[in-house]
Amino acid sequence: MIGRHKHCIALADYSREEILEVLDLAVSMKEVLQRPIKKVPSLRGKSVVNLFFEASTRTRSSFEIAAKVLSADALNWTSASSSVTKGETLIDTARNLEAMRPDVLVIRHSAGGAPQLVAEHVGCAVVSAGDGAHEHPSQGLLDCFTLREKLGTLEGKTVAIVGDISHSRVARSDIHAMTKLGARVRLCGPPTMMPAGVEALGATVHYQLREAVEGVDAVVMLRIQHERIGDPLIPGTREYSKLWGLNAKKAAEWLRPQCVILHPGPINRGVELSPEVADGPQSVILDQVQNGVAVRMAILYLLAGGNPADAGEAKA
Amino acid sequence: MIGRHKHCIALADYSREEILEVLDLAVSMKEVLQRPIKKVPSLRGKSVVNLFFEASTRTRSSFEIAAKVLSADALNWTSASSSVTKGETLIDTARNLEAMRPDVLVIRHSAGGAPQLVAEHVGCAVVSAGDGAHEHPSQGLLDCFTLREKLGTLEGKTVAIVGDISHSRVARSDIHAMTKLGARVRLCGPPTMMPAGVEALGATVHYQLREAVEGVDAVVMLRIQHERIGDPLIPGTREYSKLWGLNAKKAAEWLRPQCVILHPGPINRGVELSPEVADGPQSVILDQVQNGVAVRMAILYLLAGGNPADAGEAKA
Amino acid sequence: MIGRHKHCIALADYSREEILEVLDLAVSMKEVLQRPIKKVPSLRGKSVVNLFFEASTRTRSSFEIAAKVLSADALNWTSASSSVTKGETLIDTARNLEAMRPDVLVIRHSAGGAPQLVAEHVGCAVVSAGDGAHEHPSQGLLDCFTLREKLGTLEGKTVAIVGDISHSRVARSDIHAMTKLGARVRLCGPPTMMPAGVEALGATVHYQLREAVEGVDAVVMLRIQHERIGDPLIPGTREYSKLWGLNAKKAAEWLRPQCVILHPGPINRGVELSPEVADGPQSVILDQVQNGVAVRMAILYLLAGGNPADAGEAKA
Repeated sequence: MIGRHKHCIALADYSREEILEVLDLAVSMKEVLQRPIKKVPSLRGKSVVNLFFEASTRTRSSFEIAAKVLSADALNWTSASSSVTKGETLIDTARNLEAMRPDVLVIRHSAGGAPQLVAEHVGCAVVSAGDGAHEHPSQGLLDCFTLREKLGTLEGKTVAIVGDISHSRVARSDIHAMTKLGARVRLCGPPTMMPAGVEALGATVHYQLREAVEGVDAVVMLRIQHERIGDPLIPGTREYSKLWGLNAKKAAEWLRPQCVILHPGPINRGVELSPEVADGPQSVILDQVQNGVAVRMAILYLLAGGNPADAGEAKA
Repeated sequence: MIGRHKHCIALADYSREEILEVLDLAVSMKEVLQRPIKKVPSLRGKSVVNLFFEASTRTRSSFEIAAKVLSADALNWTSASSSVTKGETLIDTARNLEAMRPDVLVIRHSAGGAPQLVAEHVGCAVVSAGDGAHEHPSQGLLDCFTLREKLGTLEGKTVAIVGDISHSRVARSDIHAMTKLGARVRLCGPPTMMPAGVEALGATVHYQLREAVEGVDAVVMLRIQHERIGDPLIPGTREYSKLWGLNAKKAAEWLRPQCVILHPGPINRGVELSPEVADGPQSVILDQVQNGVAVRMAILYLLAGGNPADAGEAKA
Repeated sequence: MIGRHKHCIALADYSREEILEVLDLAVSMKEVLQRPIKKVPSLRGKSVVNLFFEASTRTRSSFEIAAKVLSADALNWTSASSSVTKGETLIDTARNLEAMRPDVLVIRHSAGGAPQLVAEHVGCAVVSAGDGAHEHPSQGLLDCFTLREKLGTLEGKTVAIVGDISHSRVARSDIHAMTKLGARVRLCGPPTMMPAGVEALGATVHYQLREAVEGVDAVVMLRIQHERIGDPLIPGTREYSKLWGLNAKKAAEWLRPQCVILHPGPINRGVELSPEVADGPQSVILDQVQNGVAVRMAILYLLAGGNPADAGEAKA
């Protein structure tokens, strides 16, 4: 249970307090990850099923590690090997899995709304690991966690999100969470990749990278999907990189020295980020990966009803 | 050890008492699955290898969960990623796996007889998770478990099994187990899908659905394999559905109100079962899924030599 | 830590004493595998990630079982399902995985040198599970373990390695380890598969199988890669088998009765080994498989910093 929520599907539905509940718990969880023995019994006897309809070793592994550190059992169910290839519907798959009595279903699906649909048909907790271009809530939470860790707070800070805003579930979750935590959000990308009316979410829209990143406290560089390169939305990789990519020269000239750079990964090196920037001192990209495990531990813990006594241990 | 059996390969070889031994133990196992902490130490330090030469996330996951609830380690070995693609024989693969000292090998293979062949060449226990059109013993046992749970007993009950009897390993295991537990079995399907001489197994043969299901206590609707639709055996999906599918109208007119409906899954919605029936009050399909975990826990427990002290705990 | 080593990448870099450290510990580990309860808490709370860029269920499963017997968590990351398909670099993948805080990364890659490259960019221990035609250190160690077990010692013994020496990482690791432990090594294969100047590693070169195997204490028959058959290196399978394969007749006439036969698996039955020889009394191939788990337990234990108190238990 996160605040009023039995599931973790969309940060649009979360209040500031509910978001902070996860982030605060994740601080304790990260501390567990620093120990030589990275294991607490908090979710012993609980089980987490990863139901992935899109390939994603990275996010799946993050949830799997989070479950195992908490002593939960983790089971992977990927679409390539599943009954989905036999024509079973999403809801049938989910209800069948639920009948095996997991405590949490973690779902990634190419269709926006799929996790919500599943949540309406099963009794267990549902966590979205990304659905279409809708939301990727655990990514939004780990981005906020990383910003709190690096900047102290999001209150009064400015964050630029750069890339294909239209197709980015990361952008959507980031905007919801960051604005609720008091940050100002600037969106930047090619006009063909900027959704109409996105200002309604409380962000400003920019088409020049320089204008978007000057003076900000953090930049989130989104991954450009290879499959979109060359389609009418972007003429080509070189063009994109030249206008909206960040390299060492632009970073040195346009960014404040203390500005941090995030990326949800995997990076297209040389496209949205040059290697010097991706591996440079302003990059917090690997912090994001580790924080992702901590945040997902917090989410699983809250939804799977971790044992309060063990929680004490996790926090000890 | 189930009765005299070191393996679980074919219900044709099991006596009534040996079947009941599994079903009785599965009652305790199901009780474990209802607990908030679904974990007992019964098979701690034991290991179960799932060796699947046919895709089946559903059955594999059921065995994997069963192993983990009992605290056994579970390892998945699927043919797509295995040395089988390098030309290794089935027996070589199995003997190599056995050399890694698992306690139970769970095998699914497209060739009938493969698990028996493996059992003759390894020292550990072998469980068939379905072999060709031969048998699928854990499915037969979970179907009987579900019927005992819903009907009290199989003694004197009548069960109709409907579909492609010829190619169904589920049908074969069901017939063996159900008749041994005292049920009368009616088989129904297109004449092209009815094996010659199947009456020798103790079942009656019907070609009209109405005749087969009237007055029965349970109906097992088999899955029609998509790859058989359109081949000479069935003219088409619509034709099959019209003659041998079950929809709300037929169910209301032909079935007794207390008759339960089973399906091994995954369902072809609109073909062998209409959605109204699959999700209706007579359907026990999701019970079957959960009972499948309980029955597989019982099988693994009996074959892997669970600790009697822990068994006490599992039953407590 | 094995001797001075934080990683296990190349036996070329290991001293005799460092090799013996692993083999001695593996004796205790093998004893654990013989117990009814094959589980020790030595690496509880540690995690091992299998990062495989080449299909290998066999080696991956061996490492996975080794990790689980020691109570470590094991996570599989295979290239087919990974971000590598999204264009991420090897180092990015490894550093991302490392950010999730595993204790050991086990890497298989088609490019020689890949594990070393990764080791230079991550903080955790790296174990090579085979890289290109470079080395396969755990295989070399398990082969030596098996020879010590069967022959008592390698000191003063003679071992023939037969097959495609040029492309064999197994041969390379075997040569390094066996010569350091005092064995004489003879290499045999088609001239097109014999690397120039290999004598510099301390082995003798032979082109006639009979000459190579007469009087030896052990023969390691390498697997012929199907993809090389028919290319200019070998005219065909039958030709290869006739000249460099071992069948019952050749084994009876040319080998000493106490000579043992090894093969890294999977076997091409009828090519490098006839079934009679592969399954015959001189074959120790299945011993190798089990010893592989024990040796990998020792490697993981030493690199992941197993608890000395638990080590006592493992040895007890």
